Amino acid sequence: MSPEIRGISILGATGSIGSTTLEVVDRFPERLRVAGLAAGRSTERLASLCERYRPDLVALSGEEEAEKFEGAYRCRLPGLEIEGGPSALERVATLPDAGFVMSAIVGAAGLRPTLAALRSGKVVGLANKESLVAAGAVMTRAAATSGARLIPVDSEHAAIHQCLADRYDPVRRIWLTASGGPFRTASSLEIAEATPETALRHPTWRMGPKITIDSATMMNKGLEMIEARWLFNQPPESIRVVVHPQSVVHSMVEFEDGSILAQLGVTHMRTPVQYALTWPERLPTGLAPLPLDQPLDLRFEPPDPDRFPCLRLAAEALAAGGDAPAVLNAANEAAVEAFLDRRLSFPGIPAVVAETLAARSPTEPNDLEGVARADAWARAFARELIADRALAATG
Amino acid sequence: MSPEIRGISILGATGSIGSTTLEVVDRFPERLRVAGLAAGRSTERLASLCERYRPDLVALSGEEEAEKFEGAYRCRLPGLEIEGGPSALERVATLPDAGFVMSAIVGAAGLRPTLAALRSGKVVGLANKESLVAAGAVMTRAAATSGARLIPVDSEHAAIHQCLADRYDPVRRIWLTASGGPFRTASSLEIAEATPETALRHPTWRMGPKITIDSATMMNKGLEMIEARWLFNQPPESIRVVVHPQSVVHSMVEFEDGSILAQLGVTHMRTPVQYALTWPERLPTGLAPLPLDQPLDLRFEPPDPDRFPCLRLAAEALAAGGDAPAVLNAANEAAVEAFLDRRLSFPGIPAVVAETLAARSPTEPNDLEGVARADAWARAFARELIADRALAATG
Repeated sequence: MSPEIRGISILGATGSIGSTTLEVVDRFPERLRVAGLAAGRSTERLASLCERYRPDLVALSGEEEAEKFEGAYRCRLPGLEIEGGPSALERVATLPDAGFVMSAIVGAAGLRPTLAALRSGKVVGLANKESLVAAGAVMTRAAATSGARLIPVDSEHAAIHQCLADRYDPVRRIWLTASGGPFRTASSLEIAEATPETALRHPTWRMGPKITIDSATMMNKGLEMIEARWLFNQPPESIRVVVHPQSVVHSMVEFEDGSILAQLGVTHMRTPVQYALTWPERLPTGLAPLPLDQPLDLRFEPPDPDRFPCLRLAAEALAAGGDAPAVLNAANEAAVEAFLDRRLSFPGIPAVVAETLAARSPTEPNDLEGVARADAWARAFARELIADRALAATG
Repeated sequence: MSPEIRGISILGATGSIGSTTLEVVDRFPERLRVAGLAAGRSTERLASLCERYRPDLVALSGEEEAEKFEGAYRCRLPGLEIEGGPSALERVATLPDAGFVMSAIVGAAGLRPTLAALRSGKVVGLANKESLVAAGAVMTRAAATSGARLIPVDSEHAAIHQCLADRYDPVRRIWLTASGGPFRTASSLEIAEATPETALRHPTWRMGPKITIDSATMMNKGLEMIEARWLFNQPPESIRVVVHPQSVVHSMVEFEDGSILAQLGVTHMRTPVQYALTWPERLPTGLAPLPLDQPLDLRFEPPDPDRFPCLRLAAEALAAGGDAPAVLNAANEAAVEAFLDRRLSFPGIPAVVAETLAARSPTEPNDLEGVARADAWARAFARELIADRALAATG
């Protein structure tokens, strides 16, 4: 008996997660079929993906982009529906033939199509961080109403998902592992003098500049704490971080009886992406196994809240609730952007985030518009703070 | 809604696992009730356990012991049924009021009552190693026929059981962790000159002398490989050993996609014993958690087959099948006994086991009588070998 073919839509088809998703489709053509693709940039690559995977619908981020795409590639792509703009992304996210939606658009643009997929009851592979960081309550409420299922795609939450499986054992704590980033063993002084160059040297994972800086401040782990709270419906205080420089253990769950289950393995995105796509089944990945025939040393240590204040700020925003995580995230994005542009020092990142958080009493956003208002306010407030600081430094 | 009270029988009530089982009963008197107790020795302690836990039936290993017990304690234990001999052990193992049977009698005496419990469809907490090492096919066939469930109680197999839960993900390999014993870092020469004193210094677990010597030769891990084969119905070649001196990770399961799930925690028998008793539920153990707020270093390394030939012998017996594991186990028991009596050198243990294994073509035992014949033959053969060696050394 051969399993049914699963139609999938990919939001963010030309990015790194999109490419890994398509690699998995290549591995299992008898199980996975591309129903819809959406991408913002890289139109040449998007066109060749359409030629290769023959989706029913392709969406571009804007209507103008869609028209250009139509003009440039129509003759190569007969029969393909081409659309543009936010409603097109939502159509890709809700295609009746797609049981699974990979939500891998980076940033705020991913929120609306992710919500649309959840509202229409899809199994959603979640790689877009903002969906749960900024809009966790809105997203999980939509999923609960429709019966949609959120499957995490980043390695930490995928690990936790596997440790929990569908068991309902009482959880005492969730332990997110953190590589510790490039400044794990750096002194406070060295951290204070960090430059974009030193901060961009990540020890284990290769990622884009924004997330690499988040790894250096450990804000990435703070954001993951917030995601974990929503993904696994756990109280904020039960979500902890443990530094594990080797990144072999991808995260752990401690149950009420003190037993801990950990998921470990090689660090390759194909594993969690494929697991999300084929869940609840596990299929071979074709990757070399973790070499347990060689000596392996794994270290675990508590994070240092003094050198990495972003962790504490994230925990505070999580505890405060409402739109505080959205504010944290937006202020952090503005601060990291300024740091990469050399308009803000490295310790300025947590300082700006802290000041922005402190300037607002959290309110509960009811919808994505409420989330967007909090985000816009925080971004503007943080940018003003950064400009004032730059002025004070040069004036 | 309060859960139903579960009646339990304990085979080996006065031993270490029996005591831990009763500790758990003390923790959850609203869930667990002692229906039957069986013990071979420590009659004074058995009597006080009967006074405290008020079982319906107590069994002693022999009829004579039962009569003595009756004479000494009857007035203190009105209403208690007291019986002796193998059929009494089987009655305790099959009491209608006991849904759970803890099989913790040490050695061959545990086989018949364990089989009786499995035939009557109980949930059986298995601490008796011989049941699966010597009679794995007989035991698991009985369980499959009756619908009985085997829940492992030693920390390694309990870990694997938790990693697998009731999921049917395809398993690639099972990784049994081994402390490596007192000779993990010893040279071949040091191992050759081992004495009972040096071999009895176990780094992490405190156990009886037989099992501590098995830990020094790593035969304990070989026996656990055989148990794992039957408990988890995995092919022999998929069951591997990895040395992990800290004994924090209790074992691991590697799935077909390369993902590994590991169970870890403090090293305390209450955790697996309680989990077996309350499975499929998890309840608090009252133990301090693994201190992840302190630095923790975990090492993993492959075992050295040259210094620890017992591992290879066990893998060979497992691959050979039939009664070869029963022969391995019996020859090892005879050899360890002789080593502790200073009638055999430490390297003599694997040598005697290897010669005994080589002297017999494995046959498939259909029942416990077949297992007992293989055991008796191997024990006699090994003892003769040991006597010949001693003679050769002194002659």
